Formats: sequence, C-alpha cells, structure tokens
Amino acid sequence: MAFEAFWRKLGDKCTMVISGSDLMSYLSDMGNVCWFLVPELAEAINNLHHVVDNAVSDGRHIVIGTGSTQLYQAALYALSSPGGPEPISVVSAAPYYSQYPAETDYLRSGLYKWDGDANTFDKNNGAYIEVVNSPNNPDGTIREAVLAKVNRSAEGKLIHDLAYYWPQYTPITGAADHDIMLFTLSKCTGHAGSRIGWALVKDTEVARKMTRFIELGSIGVSKESQLRAAKILGIVSDDYPNFFEYGRRLMSERWNMLRQVIRQSGVFGLPEYPLEYCNFTGKFTNSHPGFAWLESKEDEDCEKLLRAERIMARGGRRFGADAKYARVSMLSREEIFNIFLERLSAIQGGSISNGKHLGS
Amino acid sequence: MAFEAFWRKLGDKCTMVISGSDLMSYLSDMGNVCWFLVPELAEAINNLHHVVDNAVSDGRHIVIGTGSTQLYQAALYALSSPGGPEPISVVSAAPYYSQYPAETDYLRSGLYKWDGDANTFDKNNGAYIEVVNSPNNPDGTIREAVLAKVNRSAEGKLIHDLAYYWPQYTPITGAADHDIMLFTLSKCTGHAGSRIGWALVKDTEVARKMTRFIELGSIGVSKESQLRAAKILGIVSDDYPNFFEYGRRLMSERWNMLRQVIRQSGVFGLPEYPLEYCNFTGKFTNSHPGFAWLESKEDEDCEKLLRAERIMARGGRRFGADAKYARVSMLSREEIFNIFLERLSAIQGGSISNGKHLGS
Repeated sequence: MAFEAFWRKLGDKCTMVISGSDLMSYLSDMGNVCWFLVPELAEAINNLHHVVDNAVSDGRHIVIGTGSTQLYQAALYALSSPGGPEPISVVSAAPYYSQYPAETDYLRSGLYKWDGDANTFDKNNGAYIEVVNSPNNPDGTIREAVLAKVNRSAEGKLIHDLAYYWPQYTPITGAADHDIMLFTLSKCTGHAGSRIGWALVKDTEVARKMTRFIELGSIGVSKESQLRAAKILGIVSDDYPNFFEYGRRLMSERWNMLRQVIRQSGVFGLPEYPLEYCNFTGKFTNSHPGFAWLESKEDEDCEKLLRAERIMARGGRRFGADAKYARVSMLSREEIFNIFLERLSAIQGGSISNGKHLGS
Repeated sequence: MAFEAFWRKLGDKCTMVISGSDLMSYLSDMGNVCWFLVPELAEAINNLHHVVDNAVSDGRHIVIGTGSTQLYQAALYALSSPGGPEPISVVSAAPYYSQYPAETDYLRSGLYKWDGDANTFDKNNGAYIEVVNSPNNPDGTIREAVLAKVNRSAEGKLIHDLAYYWPQYTPITGAADHDIMLFTLSKCTGHAGSRIGWALVKDTEVARKMTRFIELGSIGVSKESQLRAAKILGIVSDDYPNFFEYGRRLMSERWNMLRQVIRQSGVFGLPEYPLEYCNFTGKFTNSHPGFAWLESKEDEDCEKLLRAERIMARGGRRFGADAKYARVSMLSREEIFNIFLERLSAIQGGSISNGKHLGS
C-alpha cells in the first residue's frame, strides 16, 4: 500500500474502462505457448524490462500467473513432472521466504517436496530444485545459487524469484538472465489485489508445462487484471523514471527513519547493504528492501519482543532462521508505518518498564 | 461466447471504470472466513441466488476462486487434509467431466487421487469423495449422488458441481442445498475470461480450508474480476428475467436446429431430456445443455467421424465412456455454431462418398 499515493496522484491517466461484452473468451493468443496471455500485457512486460534493464526478456517465453505464487508452483511442476519414484527436493538458502515450505508441501505432491535450507542440503541426494530469491525476502540480501557453486550437477535446477529486483528496492546492477525468473505486479507497482505475476522462461518445454499447470489449476488468469496490469506497466514505462524515483525516495526515507530509531533504541540490529552502482538511476545507492529483518541483539525472541509493543512481525523460525530474528513490512500505508516507528522507538534497551532489559 | 451479443446490446449499462489507485491491497474483508472476497461480489451472488432460487445461499459461506476449477481443487483439499496414509478416492459417475481426472492427479497428491467411475467404485474401500455434476457435463443429465444412495457411509463426502444449473440450460426445479456447491461466472453469464467461480459451503471448517487452499495457491483472486463479476451479476438480477430469457431462447433455438440436423442425417443419437416445470420461468420446459453428447448409432468412433468433417469434438473415452460418444460445444459464437451445423449435416448415413457407411 506504500505506493498508493503515487497512483492516486495520477488521476485519470491510469483509469481503465471495460464494457460488458469485453474479455468474455477463455482464449487470448492461440499462437503463443501461454495461450491465455493477453498480447497487450506481453508487450508491456517486455517494454518495462527494456526500460529498467533488470532482466533479459527478448527471446524468452512469458508465462502469466495468478500472482507469482501460482507461478512458483507452476515452475515446480514444470521442473519435476512427470516425476520419478521419489519427489524431488526443493531447497532455498535460509533465511528463506516463509511461504515456500507450505506452498511446496500443502498438497503432499509426489513430484516435489520441501527440503529446507539449501546450505545444509546433501548434494549426494541427487536431483533438486533450488529457489534463489534475490533480493531475498526476508533479509534483503543479493543472492546467488548456493548448490550450483559447490556442485555443478546437471541434476540441479533453478528458479529465480526476482520479485524485489526493481530500482525502488535495490541497485540494478545488470540484466538478470536465468532459466526461470519470476516477477509480480504487487512488488513492482504495488497492485497486489490484481494477482498478476509473470515468469520469463528460456526453455520452450518448461514454458509449455508451466502453462499446462495454470490451465489445470485455473484455466488461465483473469483478463481484467491482465489488461489493467498492461495499462499500469505501460504508464510506468512511458512515465519513466517517475514511478521508480518516487518509490526509491519513499523507501530510502523509510529506511533512514527506521535506522535512526533502531540506533536510538539499541535493542535491535539490522542488515547493512553495500553501496553499488545502479544502472537505472546512474547513481551509487544501497538497498531499501520491502521488509526489515530485525535481530534482537540480546538473542531474545524478536517476534515476542515486538508483539509486546503491538508490532506485527513474523518470527525468524518461520524463515528457517533463529527466533532472535523477525520480519516487519516496510510497505505499509504511511499511517501504519509511522505507528510502527513510534511503537518501535518505545522499545528501549535496558530501560523497559517491566525491567526485563535492565542490566542487559 | 454465445451470450456476447446480449452484453454488447447493453452498451454502457455494464461498463466498469477502475482508477489507478483502486484495489491495491491483498485484503478485502478480514471479518469474513474468505478474507479476499470483495463484499460487493458476496452481495451480488446472494441476490442472484435469491432471484433464480436455484441454490440456498443464506447462512452459507461464499468462497471465491479463480474459476470453479480452482474451487474444485480447494474442495478436494478441504475434504482430504491433513490426510492419512493413503490418498482418498475421488469418483464421479461416467460420463464425467473430462478434466476431473487430470485436475485431481496432475500433482500426484498424497491427499486425494482420481478413482474413476462412481458406478464401479468399491464402497468397501472406505473414504471417498464423489463429485456430482448436475446438469452433467458432457451429457446434460440431472444427477444425484450415486454412492450415497447405496451406502450412506459417513466416510463419503460430496462436491456438487452446479456450473450449469441456470435457467438457460435446464428447468430450475428447486433450490439446491448441498454441503459444497460450485458455480462459475463463465457458465452463468458467459464471462469465461474473468475466471470467477464461487462455492456455497455449509461447514465453517471446510470453508476455512478452501480459503486456505486458495491463499496458498494464489493469495486470493483478482479484485478487478471480482468487482466486474459483481457488476455483471447485479445487472442479471436487476434486469430479471431478461438475461436468462435471452439465454433460454438462444439455447432452445440451437437445440431445435441441432435435433433437426441429427434427425435428417440419421447417423447420430442425442439424449432426450424430460419436460419439467421450471420455477423460474413458470413454464414446462426441457434441458438445453451447454454441450451436445453425440452418439454414433453404428458404434463408430464418434470423434473421428466428426473430425473427418472438420468438427472439433472430444471423444467419449475422455469422459470415461465409449468412443462411440463425443461432446460438442453448444456455446460457440453464432458463425461457428452455424458452420458446425452445416458440416454436421454433410455427414449422411449410408451415403457418404467414400462408401464407409454404405449398406450400414
């Protein structure tokens, strides 16, 4: 909701109109591997990647999904079907996105199963899928595949979840060029309610299987959302670089305020991000992730510490990490973010009223 | 696409406008079990069921999905999780909807597995889920649960897929009142591209699990589509009974033409549907299903027979039935439907040029 004010300011420029007889068919583009992808959206996605230059989209298949959540599962299906006697292991380096385990395991698939932290995975187990989330949710770090570095096994397959690889969050240091790259409108422009994600896919057979997964799961993706996403992404590209500049400034201000509160309180630690040259802005900048990954300096349960001050956070254990960590959103509405800072600043090292931190 | 002309005639009455800052949040109604359901759509669905009186919606949970395809799988998940040592059997009486087997089995779930025709299922196998599709796709018959009649086992659970239980297809003989009832915008109003389905669910825990499935699968459902569905269903209710009258007349005309061609050709059989009193229209009428279930009178491969005249059909085997059957859509655009009739009338018993039917 952080970017809502930007879109409100645009007024009619981004308004879309749909008449009662529009968009009635299941089909969109029967010449495309992803037959339910609306051509206007394919074009808008391509244009945007050209403008931002954060990923290679030329010569790639675009597969559209109901959010990148559906595409993550489509990618697992594509990389694991028709499957063998045992499900293939799915891993990601901890701390990993807390939803990966549940999204992988809720149907108890015989094709794939969650196998936890990529750093502790035994490569001798054979085939695996490693999910590389970069910048990483929850901790904002730039990631590379962990297992491929140690063991360039042909059996290892990669999914790159690049939801946050946009200039408002992190310096754009080059055009990513991986086999399967996932993006989502919700993190790019803030339109989470539209449930639009897209994958850039090198291999035709993988794109075909991902399309098949979405066909079996939901017979395609809302055309209203696809058309609206095309309009929104079109404006982001045409109005370049206004939206990303707005987002970058907003995130930078929020992170400055957060770091100030954190320094004053002395209770928490925060990751530091390296200064890097951003090809998009032409400036040296560091990351301003969509989440803050807080660490209790005294190794206390960070989620509990925050909850005592009525701050909603997700504890480190959910991300395969220690309970001394917790994740807090940096993308809330302005009022909510300000209340968060206010409450956070009430947590003071060694001076909390109940004496818990005295002497620490 | 059959109903497109109706919606085109409506002009601006059904146009919707969405501004750039609308619908940005994931959340819709945190007080509702289905937290991503837009309240306007919940109200429109309720109103429509009151107007048509085809299903009991009062006191039921509404769970929204990306088409009823996603809801079918959500229902399987809700009725089978957390699961036991063996997957639960999913059955439906043949001929059954050809997508059920693939939608049930593509992830090789440990929770549920497709087990074919309900009529040949061994009840002693214990727990099962029976899918009752009524009116049935492909053959348009009115269905009741098969297994529950023979064996009122507490272990049997039911999903009622009522996608075609609307006045344009079949007489409305009463308000259906089952544990889980699935509906979809695509069959009700023709808006397939919106990917909106809804379930009416009696049990709160089942509704909660179905919601959880959709949360894990796609973190909700397109809000653009939900709002548009609310608008479309609102017009269908307010403008009552115009849309359904239009649809009923159209389907009735098409079926009359089809039956005439079939009689003249003598090659195919078609199911007959009983005349019944429709509470909605206040008239005796029979069914005009969305599909024609053609039978080759000479037990030939019906799909091949049709394909020879360039008619796209899906063969009986795909529905768990004999190859002498094939399913053809009755819901195509007018031009396409007319071409279908033209080509169908070219297939003549005993007089085809290649002599295949001579003497038969």
